[in-house]
Amino acid sequence: MSVPEHTDAALETLDADLAARLRFVLEADSLKSVLRRNSITDGSRRENSAEHSWHLALMALVLAPRRGEPIDVARVIEMLLVHDLVEIDAGDTFVYDDTAREQKEELEQRAADRIFAMLPAADAARLRARWDEFEASATPEARFAHSVDRLAPLLLNHTNRGKVWAEHGVTGERVRAYNAHIAAGAPDLWTAARTLIDDAVRNEWIAE
Amino acid sequence: MSVPEHTDAALETLDADLAARLRFVLEADSLKSVLRRNSITDGSRRENSAEHSWHLALMALVLAPRRGEPIDVARVIEMLLVHDLVEIDAGDTFVYDDTAREQKEELEQRAADRIFAMLPAADAARLRARWDEFEASATPEARFAHSVDRLAPLLLNHTNRGKVWAEHGVTGERVRAYNAHIAAGAPDLWTAARTLIDDAVRNEWIAE
Repeated sequence: MSVPEHTDAALETLDADLAARLRFVLEADSLKSVLRRNSITDGSRRENSAEHSWHLALMALVLAPRRGEPIDVARVIEMLLVHDLVEIDAGDTFVYDDTAREQKEELEQRAADRIFAMLPAADAARLRARWDEFEASATPEARFAHSVDRLAPLLLNHTNRGKVWAEHGVTGERVRAYNAHIAAGAPDLWTAARTLIDDAVRNEWIAE
Repeated sequence: MSVPEHTDAALETLDADLAARLRFVLEADSLKSVLRRNSITDGSRRENSAEHSWHLALMALVLAPRRGEPIDVARVIEMLLVHDLVEIDAGDTFVYDDTAREQKEELEQRAADRIFAMLPAADAARLRARWDEFEASATPEARFAHSVDRLAPLLLNHTNRGKVWAEHGVTGERVRAYNAHIAAGAPDLWTAARTLIDDAVRNEWIAE
């Protein structure tokens, strides 16, 4: 738990609504300690899920004009800001680890139940709805959010010459298959993704 | 610079508009390596400016209902997502270091000139306008963004028993004076901030 007792006691003297919001904010701080598989651009360390979430929100802001059809970018950004909060309880799952991906759904649902419920009811429902929308991937906004979420590690992995893919023996074919749904959210981003994957294969960082 | 030559060459094969946006995204990645003075909640390491920006955007989302007057939360979030990008060139300035704060304005203006100009013109202007709005602090949205930006380190410093304040000999009086403008953006957040500062003094983590 991210709220130490001495801070919890100080927040207790505020009104209950404000205290609940600030406890949620401190709980969310734990996402800064959840590590992903990929490194940051300079290769010096692994990326954490909090800074990854910031990067995605910024990407949504600057890549939305390339989406084709207009979308509600503010809703995309809200989804991206909360999409990984469940990892505080469930951890990050490596996308090429099929066994872990099967187990993660139930863990993440339970995490969402706990974490969003820390907020006052109306806001708990509002942010949970954003997370549910992202997970369901049924709206243009959710599909665009997923496209950005998949393109980000491709970009970072390319700067690091495909190191993470090579370490886990992932082939170009597998990377293409797993990321093909980028096209459903934004065809132009899929063009960029394919360019990066093809280049990684051409450079022999990963096998075809 | 954050875009290694081999990735730059791959992006060069895309259309110029898309390549420019993706170079900006990779340049922004450097914010993950800019360290702030305060630690994350568990005290294990210093916070970086990228994860801090995510935390602020999330705080804006969950604290906006406590603002009093309604505001355009999407614009607040856009401001917070880009407000620290200039630190890629100018570094983070400790708020209680008066000399550094005097020098930082020119450095940050030059950084903003360089970084936002990496984007296609319309989006460069749009995001630069968000940064200018935050810096000028003249709109309710910018003032709320500043309130959240000041409340975040107060919260984290409280969880760490005021360690950073004590290390730098900052007094309760100074912390109160520096953060009083939180009230201009959101009176309720100033109530929370004062509660945390008063508690730090009462616990003798910092001198009055």
